[in-house]
Amino acid sequence: MSDKQTRGDEEVVALPQFDVMTLLPQRSFKLLDYGHVTLVDCMPRFAPVGFTADAAIVQAARVSYGDGTKKTSEDRGLIRYLMRHGHTTPFEMVELKFHCKMPIFVARQWIRHRTANVNEISGRYSIMKDEFYKPDAAGIRAQSKTNKQGGTDPIDVNTASEYLAYLDEVCIKAYQTYEKYAGEGVSREQARMILPLNLYTEWYWKIDLHNLFHFLSLRCDAHAQYDIRVFADAMLQLISPLVPHAVEAWNDYHFRRQAVLFTRLEVDALRKMLGEDCKAVQINSDNSREKEEWKSKLTRLGLTLESGF
Amino acid sequence: MSDKQTRGDEEVVALPQFDVMTLLPQRSFKLLDYGHVTLVDCMPRFAPVGFTADAAIVQAARVSYGDGTKKTSEDRGLIRYLMRHGHTTPFEMVELKFHCKMPIFVARQWIRHRTANVNEISGRYSIMKDEFYKPDAAGIRAQSKTNKQGGTDPIDVNTASEYLAYLDEVCIKAYQTYEKYAGEGVSREQARMILPLNLYTEWYWKIDLHNLFHFLSLRCDAHAQYDIRVFADAMLQLISPLVPHAVEAWNDYHFRRQAVLFTRLEVDALRKMLGEDCKAVQINSDNSREKEEWKSKLTRLGLTLESGF
Amino acid sequence: MSDKQTRGDEEVVALPQFDVMTLLPQRSFKLLDYGHVTLVDCMPRFAPVGFTADAAIVQAARVSYGDGTKKTSEDRGLIRYLMRHGHTTPFEMVELKFHCKMPIFVARQWIRHRTANVNEISGRYSIMKDEFYKPDAAGIRAQSKTNKQGGTDPIDVNTASEYLAYLDEVCIKAYQTYEKYAGEGVSREQARMILPLNLYTEWYWKIDLHNLFHFLSLRCDAHAQYDIRVFADAMLQLISPLVPHAVEAWNDYHFRRQAVLFTRLEVDALRKMLGEDCKAVQINSDNSREKEEWKSKLTRLGLTLESGF
Amino acid sequence: MSDKQTRGDEEVVALPQFDVMTLLPQRSFKLLDYGHVTLVDCMPRFAPVGFTADAAIVQAARVSYGDGTKKTSEDRGLIRYLMRHGHTTPFEMVELKFHCKMPIFVARQWIRHRTANVNEISGRYSIMKDEFYKPDAAGIRAQSKTNKQGGTDPIDVNTASEYLAYLDEVCIKAYQTYEKYAGEGVSREQARMILPLNLYTEWYWKIDLHNLFHFLSLRCDAHAQYDIRVFADAMLQLISPLVPHAVEAWNDYHFRRQAVLFTRLEVDALRKMLGEDCKAVQINSDNSREKEEWKSKLTRLGLTLESGF
Repeated sequence: MSDKQTRGDEEVVALPQFDVMTLLPQRSFKLLDYGHVTLVDCMPRFAPVGFTADAAIVQAARVSYGDGTKKTSEDRGLIRYLMRHGHTTPFEMVELKFHCKMPIFVARQWIRHRTANVNEISGRYSIMKDEFYKPDAAGIRAQSKTNKQGGTDPIDVNTASEYLAYLDEVCIKAYQTYEKYAGEGVSREQARMILPLNLYTEWYWKIDLHNLFHFLSLRCDAHAQYDIRVFADAMLQLISPLVPHAVEAWNDYHFRRQAVLFTRLEVDALRKMLGEDCKAVQINSDNSREKEEWKSKLTRLGLTLESGF
Repeated sequence: MSDKQTRGDEEVVALPQFDVMTLLPQRSFKLLDYGHVTLVDCMPRFAPVGFTADAAIVQAARVSYGDGTKKTSEDRGLIRYLMRHGHTTPFEMVELKFHCKMPIFVARQWIRHRTANVNEISGRYSIMKDEFYKPDAAGIRAQSKTNKQGGTDPIDVNTASEYLAYLDEVCIKAYQTYEKYAGEGVSREQARMILPLNLYTEWYWKIDLHNLFHFLSLRCDAHAQYDIRVFADAMLQLISPLVPHAVEAWNDYHFRRQAVLFTRLEVDALRKMLGEDCKAVQINSDNSREKEEWKSKLTRLGLTLESGF
Repeated sequence: MSDKQTRGDEEVVALPQFDVMTLLPQRSFKLLDYGHVTLVDCMPRFAPVGFTADAAIVQAARVSYGDGTKKTSEDRGLIRYLMRHGHTTPFEMVELKFHCKMPIFVARQWIRHRTANVNEISGRYSIMKDEFYKPDAAGIRAQSKTNKQGGTDPIDVNTASEYLAYLDEVCIKAYQTYEKYAGEGVSREQARMILPLNLYTEWYWKIDLHNLFHFLSLRCDAHAQYDIRVFADAMLQLISPLVPHAVEAWNDYHFRRQAVLFTRLEVDALRKMLGEDCKAVQINSDNSREKEEWKSKLTRLGLTLESGF
Repeated sequence: MSDKQTRGDEEVVALPQFDVMTLLPQRSFKLLDYGHVTLVDCMPRFAPVGFTADAAIVQAARVSYGDGTKKTSEDRGLIRYLMRHGHTTPFEMVELKFHCKMPIFVARQWIRHRTANVNEISGRYSIMKDEFYKPDAAGIRAQSKTNKQGGTDPIDVNTASEYLAYLDEVCIKAYQTYEKYAGEGVSREQARMILPLNLYTEWYWKIDLHNLFHFLSLRCDAHAQYDIRVFADAMLQLISPLVPHAVEAWNDYHFRRQAVLFTRLEVDALRKMLGEDCKAVQINSDNSREKEEWKSKLTRLGLTLESGF
């Protein structure tokens, strides 16, 4: 969609458009044993040939500048500027719709992100399928010693196998009971309560790019539970060809990605480590504004810069 | 808080205040077997003696009028006017915080209301307690013939008892496995996946009154699942002494309470049933504005009103 | 997008698709003197030939039913059922993006709807254009006697002309000052504060269909200010060919459209007017579920129905 | 409110409570010429003697841990941990309600924060007062050379005085017209459109602490427009005695406060500046977890740590 096209009071100059979904090598990833994430739709669906869905971010951002500064900006630079400075609203102009299938204990974490639109299969209406998440033994993790809420390393294979055997037994017993008594007329909304949390559910999940980045920053993170992280990682892979500049900027500038946040205490330690005589190094960028920003952070680190830095 | 007190540029005239939580006969209801709803806190916490938390609604609404129309309004009438006309923002000025404990399948319905603040116990951090919802036999309902998503009448007691015996068996087996293997070092975040959906969870849940009314309109409704309806009903009972005028207005004017919404097709049928010669009856109210509104609805019903109606 | 395509674990059966934006006779309406509303994009952008964007609502709703009840439903009936019963989440799966230009006092009402994504032109970055809303004399309304917040009838033409002459004078003086001193280096963020509220601003505005219906129910209403209502009316006209079943259902079932909400007091009056001997009339519908609903409302009106009604 | 009190199923052990609003040296700040920010109310309103409203954050966070880890935690440490790790939901359990009066161009920036509840004076109902923001000459800023959207240094006093004289003239003319024609029956909703953007408006504004911190991080920032920054600064001053640990943690850990975010490019430059032989310095903290986190960031900087660091 060229900017011109959207003006009610101007002549329309249409560039040739293409369906941005054709940029995706694949639209779906199978995950865990029965799960998947599928990118069903996106907005914008069309972009001028040679562009991507990043175009909708840039288009929205430029409304802020009116006509005045329009010519001088360049898409990638603008998107990086917006990301670096927390101008988040243009990223909200991209919308992604996924179809997802995951275990209920994963869905319970996922749903805490309140900014998405969701339509989930209802166990009040429907008979749930006999699909339970059962990792293999190598997929059972030990409680982390350092991270109270996580598990990263596999537990010994015997313990894992024992646990999995009981898991299997409970799932079979629970599903048999569910199926039998729902069949005999027990209300579905009650019969389901016997089903374990590894039962699969599914939903449509629609969210804008800014809020998706927030979700991904938490759920692609090393501290996220593995069983949800695979879903987040797959979503990131799906959207990367759609909004490549936005994803690159997010990777470079978000503190849960490749950027690092130093606390007040850590900045103090860094100052000491660098010392007053440290010679500042310029960043590897030809963006003059970004270099200026680095300069002002160096001042925060107590460094006096040579003229011409 | 008197209105005067909130003006930065005026002298303060303080009325004697009291803690509105003292209006509650009880702050907590035990529900189901292990559940409860407890009103932990509310805003406003203070109101002038003789008033209730309704005062915060009125205070906020009157900022809309500035000083001009201030004297002529009267609290109950104003609140009823706001509710009738969908002026919802003043109701957002009242905030309620609950501590709740409920089965997970209930929590999963509840959390779909996205406008609340929530802190839930985490099965990644904590060992969940051995608490599962097990209704008695009379509490097991049959699938409704007319309502695909519900169950209202009890199922025969034999079927119920059989189902409950299996439910018990599965819960015991699942919890034993969970406890044993979490004890042996399986990560809590994974060990929990064997636990059935009738496991209890708990959370703090904070919401403004407008959004609570929306929640209650859906969850106190006859179509809501019984097992969540008891929680909604308890919340309604808890807040009723706090914001009595607001609750009364909501009951009188909401189409899921005592008001009735007639669709376009139904209005057409009503017109025919009333006929053109029907003599209109005035509503039982001394509010002239409300009577005017009725008059204009009668016109929609095709009735010609006598002068002076 | 056919439902099949979205399943990660099934073969893909693609129906021929078309761009739903081609359903629009026009994509933009000029409004007031310099304003406009333009539909820039929508999600879904594609639908199977013979369908409309309503397809995305139905697709999302059916995930609730899983496979079980899929065949028996029919699109229009399902959409009407969802609307009638307040199942709002499927409507959130349709997303609309508009480019709009309107006076600031209109924008200030509009922005109170918090569920949209917005990118507005910034008076901190850009020099605002010399565009002010100046109605003609017939467009200046008198303060309503009955509606404290509105004006409906035109005021006498002399008063209108006098007011408009002053409005013109103030806008010219204000803009000259703004332009001159912004030109002489006064910061744009401050220079703009002299500009009157009838200055035009513009934004991209993106919202899902459920929340757009909420916006339209308030802003297409007779109580809305005329100067925003024209924008709401134009948006409704733009989306009507895109989601025709949804718009029809909303018109039939929303109490601010063709449906009527009767308060508790009014239901009591209706009962008296109908009397106990009134013969109920069936609604003009062949939808058996809708007829059942009417039956239960008749009971609320105190009517005893003949068998076979 | 002690934690015990909130459990429906346990005996109540009440600690002596006090009104946390008494912690405020003053509840209102006058700002600009006619503006103000007043803290009207907060939740929690009560805290155990010796504590502050921080208690509600801690209470909510601990529900995540169940009973297990309850004793070992300590309030300040827990709040700092939550802030550092982006566990934002406990901060949502504190609610703040302000009464504010500010120029409309400030209100327009402010309202873009969509997570607050707002009741604003309505120019459709009420006659707006003759109150316009008129800075003195030293308060008129020049357009910044480096910051396209801002102004920081005062402009020369002659230019300022000239601009202000015109501003005064336009406000007087506009208000006279408004007052006269609203008096002669022009609808208020239209008459107001002649009024300039420096007109004062007022509202109640209620927001939770997490979202308030987000607002403050943007609006207390050096890049925010001065005329809104004074309001943000005042709000920060008002809440500081209420939630001292939360404010301290936010100052230490937020990248727009005393923490610094280094982008991927900047981290690369830092690595070079530090060199491989740099001796790491421990942070000035006795919190072992925070020291561990610093250690892992040092690894990101390419430093090999001595054993025992």
